[in-house]
Parts: sequence; C-alpha cells; structure tokens
Amino acid sequence: MKIVAFAGGVGGAKLADGLAQILPPESLTIIVNTGDDFEHYGLAISPDVDTVCYTLAGMANPETGWGLKDETFRALRSAAALGGPEWFALGDKDLGTHLERTRRLRAGESLSAITAEFCRRWGVGPRVIPMSDDPVRTKVLTSSGELPFQEYFVHQRCEPPVRGFRFEGASRARPAPGALDALRNADAVIFCPSNPWVSIDPILNTLSLPPFPQKADGTPIPVLAVSPIIGGKALKGPAAKMYAELGIHPSAQAVARHYRGFLSGFVLDVQDASEEEAVRALGMKTLVVNTVMRSREDRKELAKDMLHFAKILIQESNE
Amino acid sequence: MKIVAFAGGVGGAKLADGLAQILPPESLTIIVNTGDDFEHYGLAISPDVDTVCYTLAGMANPETGWGLKDETFRALRSAAALGGPEWFALGDKDLGTHLERTRRLRAGESLSAITAEFCRRWGVGPRVIPMSDDPVRTKVLTSSGELPFQEYFVHQRCEPPVRGFRFEGASRARPAPGALDALRNADAVIFCPSNPWVSIDPILNTLSLPPFPQKADGTPIPVLAVSPIIGGKALKGPAAKMYAELGIHPSAQAVARHYRGFLSGFVLDVQDASEEEAVRALGMKTLVVNTVMRSREDRKELAKDMLHFAKILIQESNE
Repeated sequence: MKIVAFAGGVGGAKLADGLAQILPPESLTIIVNTGDDFEHYGLAISPDVDTVCYTLAGMANPETGWGLKDETFRALRSAAALGGPEWFALGDKDLGTHLERTRRLRAGESLSAITAEFCRRWGVGPRVIPMSDDPVRTKVLTSSGELPFQEYFVHQRCEPPVRGFRFEGASRARPAPGALDALRNADAVIFCPSNPWVSIDPILNTLSLPPFPQKADGTPIPVLAVSPIIGGKALKGPAAKMYAELGIHPSAQAVARHYRGFLSGFVLDVQDASEEEAVRALGMKTLVVNTVMRSREDRKELAKDMLHFAKILIQESNE
Repeated sequence: MKIVAFAGGVGGAKLADGLAQILPPESLTIIVNTGDDFEHYGLAISPDVDTVCYTLAGMANPETGWGLKDETFRALRSAAALGGPEWFALGDKDLGTHLERTRRLRAGESLSAITAEFCRRWGVGPRVIPMSDDPVRTKVLTSSGELPFQEYFVHQRCEPPVRGFRFEGASRARPAPGALDALRNADAVIFCPSNPWVSIDPILNTLSLPPFPQKADGTPIPVLAVSPIIGGKALKGPAAKMYAELGIHPSAQAVARHYRGFLSGFVLDVQDASEEEAVRALGMKTLVVNTVMRSREDRKELAKDMLHFAKILIQESNE
C-alpha cells in the first residue's frame, strides 16, 4: 500500500513518524508545507521541512517537537548581543542545517534535491518532498494588517486576530518534482493532524488540489484526514483560535467541513465521538480512535488505525 | 597626537591593540583591509575587521590570533555532516557576528556603520573603519590560475606559487566615510606589521594612496611602517613566501622598498639591524627595536616605540 501524507509542523511530523514506523520506506511519501519558509539573518529556513526530517531522524527535541535535542544557542546569543533579533530560536546545530541549505540553494540546487540529500545523510527512509521548489509564502491577514507567517506565528505569538490567509506565489509555483507522481501512484492520501489553514491549505493550493488524481482504472484515491482539533482545542498551535476568529466554532466537524467534497474518511478523537454523526452527514466515513500522540508508541498506534481505515476505504472505492 | 593605523589580520591587530593601550580612543583610527572579505554559506564575512575588533575587545583567541576565545564549532560540524565545507573555521560565537552583520547589510546598513555599532557594543574605544563600504575582493594570481583570496589563503593554505595580485573593485570603491578625513587630520600614519601585498596594498589602492594628504599648512604627514618580515621570515602568514615567489629576496629592506617614495620612517627588528643602512639609502629614517609581539606588554612597548619615532618624524617635517 503506497501512502502520500501531507504534513505541516509538529503534529504532522508525529503522525508521519508513526507511518514511517510501520510502512516500508518506499511506500511512504511525505509532502511538506513550505508556506512558512522564510529568510532570517540571510539564511533560508524551512521550519516544517526541518521539523518533519528531524522527527523522522529521531533528532527532534522531544520537549518542543521542533528544533534539535541537545541544542545550544551560542551563535544566536552572540548575534543578540550585537542587536540581532532573538524571537526565532536558532540553535547552533540547527544553524548548520540552515547554513548548508543556504549554501546549496546559492549554488543552484533545488530545495527538494537538498532535502533528499539531507534525508539520506540523516538516515531518513521515507521520501520527504517540500511541496514546491518555488517560493510560496503564507501571509496572515490580521486586524493589524498582513503579516508574513513567522512574524505572526513566532514573533507575535499568534496574537493578532486573523481575518484570512494568502499564499503568495502559490499560483505560479510548480509542484516539486515527484510530488504529483507520488499522488498518482498512491493508494491513499493522508492529511496529518496539521493546521488546515496554514499547513494543509498551502499544499492544496500549490498542488492545485482538488481534484485529486484518480487511479489508472478511474477509481478515486481515498483521501483521509485526522482532526488537529480535539475537544474544541488544538493540541498545539493556533488552529482553534483561527477558527474562532474567522467566526467558525472550533471543532473536529469544522475541520471536516473545511475539507468537504474531497475527503473520503475523517478520523476523530474519542473525546469528539459525539460529532461523528455530523461528520458522516458531510458524506465522509468516520473513525473514532485516540488521536493524541504523547509517545512514539502513540504515533505508531494512530498510524496503524489510519492504515486500517485507509484499507477499508480503498476496498470500498474498488467495489 | 592623532594616529591613523592601517591594519590587516593578526599582526596588524596586535600593534593596533598596542596603540589602543596608550592613545586615548579619540586619537586613534584604524583603517582595516576588506580585500579578503567574502561570502560563505550565504553570510558576509570580514575576517580582518573581525580580527582587529576581537583583538581590541580582548575577545580574540590568544592561541590563533583570529577567532574568539572559548569557542565551539557545533554549527559548522552540523553543516559538515550534511556535506558543507569545513575549511574556513566558523565558531558558534563568531557565527553570531557574521549572522548579525549579514542581517544588517541586507537591511541596508553599511559595513562601516555596522562595524561602528559592533565596536560600541563590544566596548572597543578607537574608531575601526573598514577601508570601504563597497566590495573590494583580492584575487591572487597563481601558477594554477586566479584564486579568490580565502580560497588561496585558507582553503589552499597559500600553497600555489603567486605571480601577482588584483584588487577587484578597488578602482570603483569609495573610501568608507571618515577614512579620508581621519587621514587629513592625522599627525602620523602607521602601517602595522601586516602583509604588504594583500593587507596594506588593498588599502592603498582603495584609498588612492599615495599621495597622502598634507597638513593644512602644507607639511607632509609622516608615514611609518613596521616590517612584517623579520630575519627573512614572516612571523605569520605568507608574506615572505610571496616575496620569494615574486623573485624578490624576502627581507625587511624588501618591505621598505615596497613602500619606497612615500614612507618617512621604517621600523626594523633588532634581528635585522644589519639592514638599517640599506633602508636609510631608500630615503627613510629608521628605528631598530624589538618588533616581535608575544605578549600584550610587547604590543604596548612596540606602540610606544612607534609613537616616539613618529614624534621625531613630525618634528622634523615641521622644521
């Protein structure tokens, strides 16, 4: 069974890691949001790509979910002593990644080729593809104006109320090499529990989805999502806050509605079992399981549940 | 007495530090070579400016003369694990300097303004002026082709035999703000014991010197140099090797001849006392003292000797 997973940051990386624990490497492709990439101190930084790769390599900081474990911040402190901004945490080892990515980009290598090479060197088995080699930059429309994503997300700590989003460059950006082929050859597509507005939507926009590709025989490829909102709250990040500010009650079913029309299956947490009916009413199959991933074992368990659910949806779409 | 010192890397920084130990900060301006500046990993690196500033701030690594003390190399090792070049030592704290310099340059600040601000924050009293805010790039013509300076100097360890030098951009580059004014107001100019070919010559070329400015009353400003070659050898760096490869016997008098026509005074090491006559024959006054700076005290002693010598030359030029 070939799976393509869409992922943003920490939550997405965790499920991607669960899938990687079960599937043979050649059966898993992870397409990662690059809408929150940015330039900082002259360096090209790809936060979601790094979070996914660090997590799959077992190098991620277990406390934060992002960054590297056993990290120091000597360079950043030295820059800060000269007046440099400290709001974006740049660890020393993490800086090595940004330095080498920047060096290779300047030398003409593509982000996807660089990511493939980094994965090879870090021992990451599954294929990790940034959604595009062309720049796509998520802009957050807030009541205090339009903000670049990291300015909103990290510097202003998601405080300004949001009014909408814009994915600058998405219409011109070409999907990264291999992304559409992986989708065409997939048996199922999984949206990891990432923020619908700023992690999954940029990928959908950049890859011009929906419509999702069909199998050669014309059968649709099932698309499944896991709700990043549990009990009305996001485990991490501003997803629930964003829904509320956009005038939508934050809930699992709000996430399902977000993807309505092209999702075949939706996974709710046991805490949200009462919303199962409402999600089914949107025309989706549902699965209710524990979706909170506290341990590496939790990630594997959720991945197992997802793959089992995917198999059922694949069988049904073949009938 | 107002002094302008020209300096390149480690040797130059040591004498600059000696002068800074004696002179009130407002009496000393150090104009620093930027011909060996380069871009590495996307960062703007100014090795000589950093060496001078780190030395004056008491932050330099006493073992090497360049870089910072108590340094670690976690970022560089992390980049190297991804295939990045390791030949240029980038310490973590040192990286902070390059990051913030790069950030400010991208934001439109000039190298000289950035250097002034860094000096303020590091507690460096004398004025340190990079020779130009415009890029000047020293190219080393070798028997295996033309090499960018750091490629020759660090990566290839000065191994390729040199045939000449080119200061790319020097004719278009404008002297940094304050550099020519400092020269016009100087009572004496001191060439620190830096490499004539690749430290002092780029400054002379960029500032279109000689002729050196004269005092308002028409008297010339004395220009003094210390030989970086002692006993036929350079204490550090490739100066002696360069002279030999260019077909000139490396010696203190060869350095004096390099600056012939505009130098009023030349300082030889006691080891080279036998060359004093030959240097005088070039039309220069001479001073023979210990010029080897092993300790901070040595730097101060040499600076004292230089200033004493400068006073004599100033009196003579006023007669």
